[in-house]
Amino acid sequence: MSLIWDKGKSTVNARIQAFAAGEDVMLDRVLFVHDIVASKGHVKGLARIKILSATEEVALLEGLDRLKTMFENGEFVLDERFEDGHSAIEAQLTEWLGESGKKVHTGRSRNDQVLVATRLYLKAALDELASLCEATAHALLDRAEAEMWTPMPGYTHLQRAVPSSVGMWLAGLAEGFIDDAELARMTFQWVDQNPLGTAAGYGVNIPLDRAFVTEELGFARMQVNPIYAQNSRGKFEIQVIDCLCQAMLDVRRFAWDLSLYTTAEFDFVHLPDDYTTGSSIMPNKRNPDIVELLRGTYGVLEGARVELAQVLSLPSGYHRDLQNTKPPLIRAVEKGLGAMALMSDLVQALEFNREAMHSAISPDMYATDLAVEMAARGVPFREAYREAAAQIPNLVDRAPQESLKVRTSPGGAANPMLDVLRARLKS
Amino acid sequence: MSLIWDKGKSTVNARIQAFAAGEDVMLDRVLFVHDIVASKGHVKGLARIKILSATEEVALLEGLDRLKTMFENGEFVLDERFEDGHSAIEAQLTEWLGESGKKVHTGRSRNDQVLVATRLYLKAALDELASLCEATAHALLDRAEAEMWTPMPGYTHLQRAVPSSVGMWLAGLAEGFIDDAELARMTFQWVDQNPLGTAAGYGVNIPLDRAFVTEELGFARMQVNPIYAQNSRGKFEIQVIDCLCQAMLDVRRFAWDLSLYTTAEFDFVHLPDDYTTGSSIMPNKRNPDIVELLRGTYGVLEGARVELAQVLSLPSGYHRDLQNTKPPLIRAVEKGLGAMALMSDLVQALEFNREAMHSAISPDMYATDLAVEMAARGVPFREAYREAAAQIPNLVDRAPQESLKVRTSPGGAANPMLDVLRARLKS
Amino acid sequence: MSLIWDKGKSTVNARIQAFAAGEDVMLDRVLFVHDIVASKGHVKGLARIKILSATEEVALLEGLDRLKTMFENGEFVLDERFEDGHSAIEAQLTEWLGESGKKVHTGRSRNDQVLVATRLYLKAALDELASLCEATAHALLDRAEAEMWTPMPGYTHLQRAVPSSVGMWLAGLAEGFIDDAELARMTFQWVDQNPLGTAAGYGVNIPLDRAFVTEELGFARMQVNPIYAQNSRGKFEIQVIDCLCQAMLDVRRFAWDLSLYTTAEFDFVHLPDDYTTGSSIMPNKRNPDIVELLRGTYGVLEGARVELAQVLSLPSGYHRDLQNTKPPLIRAVEKGLGAMALMSDLVQALEFNREAMHSAISPDMYATDLAVEMAARGVPFREAYREAAAQIPNLVDRAPQESLKVRTSPGGAANPMLDVLRARLKS
Amino acid sequence: MSLIWDKGKSTVNARIQAFAAGEDVMLDRVLFVHDIVASKGHVKGLARIKILSATEEVALLEGLDRLKTMFENGEFVLDERFEDGHSAIEAQLTEWLGESGKKVHTGRSRNDQVLVATRLYLKAALDELASLCEATAHALLDRAEAEMWTPMPGYTHLQRAVPSSVGMWLAGLAEGFIDDAELARMTFQWVDQNPLGTAAGYGVNIPLDRAFVTEELGFARMQVNPIYAQNSRGKFEIQVIDCLCQAMLDVRRFAWDLSLYTTAEFDFVHLPDDYTTGSSIMPNKRNPDIVELLRGTYGVLEGARVELAQVLSLPSGYHRDLQNTKPPLIRAVEKGLGAMALMSDLVQALEFNREAMHSAISPDMYATDLAVEMAARGVPFREAYREAAAQIPNLVDRAPQESLKVRTSPGGAANPMLDVLRARLKS
Repeated sequence: MSLIWDKGKSTVNARIQAFAAGEDVMLDRVLFVHDIVASKGHVKGLARIKILSATEEVALLEGLDRLKTMFENGEFVLDERFEDGHSAIEAQLTEWLGESGKKVHTGRSRNDQVLVATRLYLKAALDELASLCEATAHALLDRAEAEMWTPMPGYTHLQRAVPSSVGMWLAGLAEGFIDDAELARMTFQWVDQNPLGTAAGYGVNIPLDRAFVTEELGFARMQVNPIYAQNSRGKFEIQVIDCLCQAMLDVRRFAWDLSLYTTAEFDFVHLPDDYTTGSSIMPNKRNPDIVELLRGTYGVLEGARVELAQVLSLPSGYHRDLQNTKPPLIRAVEKGLGAMALMSDLVQALEFNREAMHSAISPDMYATDLAVEMAARGVPFREAYREAAAQIPNLVDRAPQESLKVRTSPGGAANPMLDVLRARLKS
Repeated sequence: MSLIWDKGKSTVNARIQAFAAGEDVMLDRVLFVHDIVASKGHVKGLARIKILSATEEVALLEGLDRLKTMFENGEFVLDERFEDGHSAIEAQLTEWLGESGKKVHTGRSRNDQVLVATRLYLKAALDELASLCEATAHALLDRAEAEMWTPMPGYTHLQRAVPSSVGMWLAGLAEGFIDDAELARMTFQWVDQNPLGTAAGYGVNIPLDRAFVTEELGFARMQVNPIYAQNSRGKFEIQVIDCLCQAMLDVRRFAWDLSLYTTAEFDFVHLPDDYTTGSSIMPNKRNPDIVELLRGTYGVLEGARVELAQVLSLPSGYHRDLQNTKPPLIRAVEKGLGAMALMSDLVQALEFNREAMHSAISPDMYATDLAVEMAARGVPFREAYREAAAQIPNLVDRAPQESLKVRTSPGGAANPMLDVLRARLKS
Repeated sequence: MSLIWDKGKSTVNARIQAFAAGEDVMLDRVLFVHDIVASKGHVKGLARIKILSATEEVALLEGLDRLKTMFENGEFVLDERFEDGHSAIEAQLTEWLGESGKKVHTGRSRNDQVLVATRLYLKAALDELASLCEATAHALLDRAEAEMWTPMPGYTHLQRAVPSSVGMWLAGLAEGFIDDAELARMTFQWVDQNPLGTAAGYGVNIPLDRAFVTEELGFARMQVNPIYAQNSRGKFEIQVIDCLCQAMLDVRRFAWDLSLYTTAEFDFVHLPDDYTTGSSIMPNKRNPDIVELLRGTYGVLEGARVELAQVLSLPSGYHRDLQNTKPPLIRAVEKGLGAMALMSDLVQALEFNREAMHSAISPDMYATDLAVEMAARGVPFREAYREAAAQIPNLVDRAPQESLKVRTSPGGAANPMLDVLRARLKS
Repeated sequence: MSLIWDKGKSTVNARIQAFAAGEDVMLDRVLFVHDIVASKGHVKGLARIKILSATEEVALLEGLDRLKTMFENGEFVLDERFEDGHSAIEAQLTEWLGESGKKVHTGRSRNDQVLVATRLYLKAALDELASLCEATAHALLDRAEAEMWTPMPGYTHLQRAVPSSVGMWLAGLAEGFIDDAELARMTFQWVDQNPLGTAAGYGVNIPLDRAFVTEELGFARMQVNPIYAQNSRGKFEIQVIDCLCQAMLDVRRFAWDLSLYTTAEFDFVHLPDDYTTGSSIMPNKRNPDIVELLRGTYGVLEGARVELAQVLSLPSGYHRDLQNTKPPLIRAVEKGLGAMALMSDLVQALEFNREAMHSAISPDMYATDLAVEMAARGVPFREAYREAAAQIPNLVDRAPQESLKVRTSPGGAANPMLDVLRARLKS
């Protein structure tokens, strides 16, 4: 049962087969429905140019629909009985329809079949990513608005710097996710091109109606050149991972904030029990496991990206190495979206310890305000800085809101432009 | 002189300083003009809200212009005398203008100063990248058009597969660079937001007119939240590197093709002497060094990206670690654009060995055509495949153009849609 | 069934649980036997200090042996019923033994339980890696010896340079794998330290006999400090991946060689049918898929390493992020050893096309010999080089063996020192 | 002056040259002395086999010594006048000695010249790394011994867990650096093999006495096969970077600890002024910049490793891409050793706030001790756990030392085995 490679226990051939197969067919579960959808488009295209008769078209489309339903219901299980999901479709149709089942593959190669199913998966992933980022941004903006005047320290170098507010912190995070959503939507447009109809990279001697199939499958345009279609294997995948990386960079930063703010030392934020776990040995512990796992997700994506990019050091044309683009892609998408899907609930669940935050604002943190005030009145800044530094021991506590109130520049606490941020979400 | 760290030869303090400084000021040479431009915007903004008098504004703007000219002429050298390029500006203005020179820094922090200069650099890099990709695509399309019917083998797994053409190969590469240019232009829009006016991440108690400065500096919009401005350090940089990576993936594949095609064994392509070097020991050698260096450039970018992403595992707010985003960014941009700048000339310089390409198309490569023809006439594909396989020993040489001529599907040799690809370049 | 994260279909809590669990329990299958072995050591240690009675000890050891047997027979399946493999052991013992089953966990925490099971896995992986590298080196040396005088071109920059031999090529690869084996054995010694007995990173208020357990489990020494034990999570894993990387670098280069040498253009090497696959659409193809998958394996390891290293940007002590070290480790080990296990058979299976190799040695490739001969006779090298270059058009074919015969420096074809390389394998 | 690639301003050829040259000659400054040392060995070897006369040998050795002295004094500057450091040596000797200066290059190629100089550099780097790790471990152990009973909280998940001590924390860090030093010394042995005498990868038709030169240069053994010598380019470099990575992982964790412990919220550690900087805008700030830069160093190394590994996806033999191994190697070594060189002083400079640490140990942190005590007395652990949890509200403050005193297992606070750790340093 050990996966440590057991040489000797199997024949050469069996070992080779096992190595080549990898986890391919299991991964294809996430591509399977996309593959069926694309296959339906291909069937319609073949019927349009009379390669398939109307009867064959109907039978194949019904078969594909049936397979989709059975797969979604769990009646059809994609597993090691099949070499991969792509061949499973043909195999099942042939079992049901005999010779005409095989015709689903006329005029296409497994190469463009994989490409188009993956392309549909990329589009779905980017769409989901954009929606999840937008939902997270909405949740953050709602809470930011409510807490715009709740004081908390602003840090640089993790050192207390100047007064800030919970609302400013959350609005800053929101703006990041708004950018992430926008990037995902831009990238969606970029990858929205149909590779189906390019066969193994050199086209095919059949007059496929690629424009019709492109529209049928909802692509914005055709990926024109067959060699490029092959050469783009992995290229578009990387860009999708990059979009997920952008969102996860923001998730990671937020998780770091929460990891610090939930320590006994900071004690700014409490997490509901759903988000913490106990210790098996220490009765006194509540650990923010989910926050830590969110923080750790970025690494999965970065690793996947490096793995994928290493594969692509190849000449033009298909090579079997390119099969290795699948596992890192799917790992990155599923982990990234899985993390992102937890975010808006988490934002809503945060409980703020307003008292602790307020009392962490020490009087010396007003020194910068003092220096800038003097500078604005015309005192050379170096002199103002020295004067303010000298006054630090004498500074008394103010209401932090006094400091926030004068930050009237656009984006500042007194002018956070939340409406402008919200407007970008609606577009 | 050895850079191997010489402990003992310097005091603790000197070693700390040297470690902290790094190569910072040298790197700032590429940011310096952008910093001056942004400083001019800041000065105008301060004058607008009466923090600077009209006289001070004029003096500062003139000083900044003078510094820019001197820097471009080599009269002002940015070197280790300065902590970094950002402080060099203030230092030089103060030397020239006295107290009012220092006022250039009123209401900004080095944090947003660095951010805005870097942002302008990112925009310039993306614009340059898009232009270079477009120029390369143009060169490729021109040659593709001329060589659309020049036969060459199409490979999969580096094994001869079916007949293809030089034009198809080059048009495929062109389409990649068209996508790369488009991605660079999209990303330009995404990063086109102004961080200036956010100080050290918490705004400032001066009513800066950020909208005015944003327009003055040619940004499409404001980056609103000050904490986000800080948190986006590195985030936008990564996305720019990702764009460069996309172009370099295509450069790398092209370089691989050339590396193979210039071997004695393939002998499909000759490179002009400019692109090769001799060997110091072997009189018989001409080596395609430039092609190999182009191939190697992707790795520099991937390394830079990983370096940069590692830095960003941090809580909100500025940390000194973020200084480490600068070297990988600049390395990636300069190397990536440097490689890209060689491409269009290289494309134009390629000499094709048409005879060698033609004679590499062996008769067995027509077997697929045969099988597909049979399938299109209604023979079940498995049977057609077996029949075609059986006929391989009897296949005689055809004109490869016969095979290309029937690839009439959109994108195929007989319908390469070069006009559609060219149209995307014009938009 | 889609893994694309289905928000809304599950409650917050279920989604959180699913995200946190990941694929953990499935991965633990490769650690499970190691965990049982370590648990037996812990039980013996507890008995030795009288925390367990002799009766309890016997019952627990028998239970652990039974579980191991059942697992290996497939009677006990480790699956999603359990949180992970570590808790499954306690759960099963408790089911069998009641209250005393739980005592297996006295004085240890899941933290050091995971650490010690992983450490045993690392040791097994390194040992397996060393053996596989040695087997591969043996196969290469045997074939090298037989083909030492079989001429083939030596290339630099993929350009034909000077005559070389098949034996030189294979002996060079062998020396790499010998170094890889040695590195794996060195690293084995480095990781051979026992973390068990350090609990959650702060020890435990029970006088565990760690020296006894260390010996019992076959570790060379104790990992002393409990905080270090926690902090080394991921650290040792990375170094093991690095060893696998070294071997895979050599596998990748070998696969590249084979990928080129099996092209129609080079045609130096033929692969048996086991190592190639046909095409579903092209009757004329035999593709070297296994060679390409071997080439692609390095990328999996590099990605895993980056993924793992990203996780480790953390303060001292355990954090849940560290759970994320498991998937990349196991992926790297299983893929790396899986690839390595195919190597020695592949080496034995290669068929050389001696004629093609010989005829690829063109007369100009003797020019370097000529120049060096003149230089050795005292002609200044630049002059000798020019003279040899001038003679290239007149060079006639020699027997390549004449050129090989005079390469008498240690390591050269006439003195390949295969015995010295073999001697390193025996040590 | 902008480095943004200025197309049009230079001819094709000049641009190609600039791209190809890169920063090569500047990087060679760190290799230059090693190259001279290796060249001396090569000269002695040539004299031994009578390729050089005794007179020529003396002249060349004197010339090489003179060049070394001049370089170290700054009288000879290695800059863009030379293609690289390797050709600079020949150029300078020829200027001084005429025709016989050129003879330094007889029987070697630039390929093995670069390899051997780099190999000497790798050895120097590993030796320096080991020494710096040992010095750091010594400093940590000294302070650990003095502070073994100084209480501080032990954290898991950044949550307060159980009482620990400053000594335990520092001893844990020390053990990491001891392992790092050991790994560096092991790796030194692994790379300690001489590639000189293998020319461009196929040996040379001169009977070089490689065994003599190997000993002369202080290598432990010969790297035998010439093809392997070329194929190992980058391979050994990666392993050296991996060693630096291990040390930097430990530096990064230590820096994270300090970054937290120097916050106002934790306030456990104070840094001397040398290690902090002020803010240009905030008079109240002292920022731990050095600690943050130390934390950031790991990323530089990880990026360098990825960059280097990307290059190595190549067939056997030299390719110009391999030139790209130099910048990441040198960057990693210089940055890594630079960071490491700051560590022992930093450790000695830390000031502990014992009061703050003590008062951060809250009464609930004794609950685990309570539960384990009950369990050791035979109470089933789940029951003990519940009982201890129930008592948390009633727990009163104890002296933390009471809890430390009972951690008598090897490695625990009451038995930290510092002598065992120190003994490993002496070996």
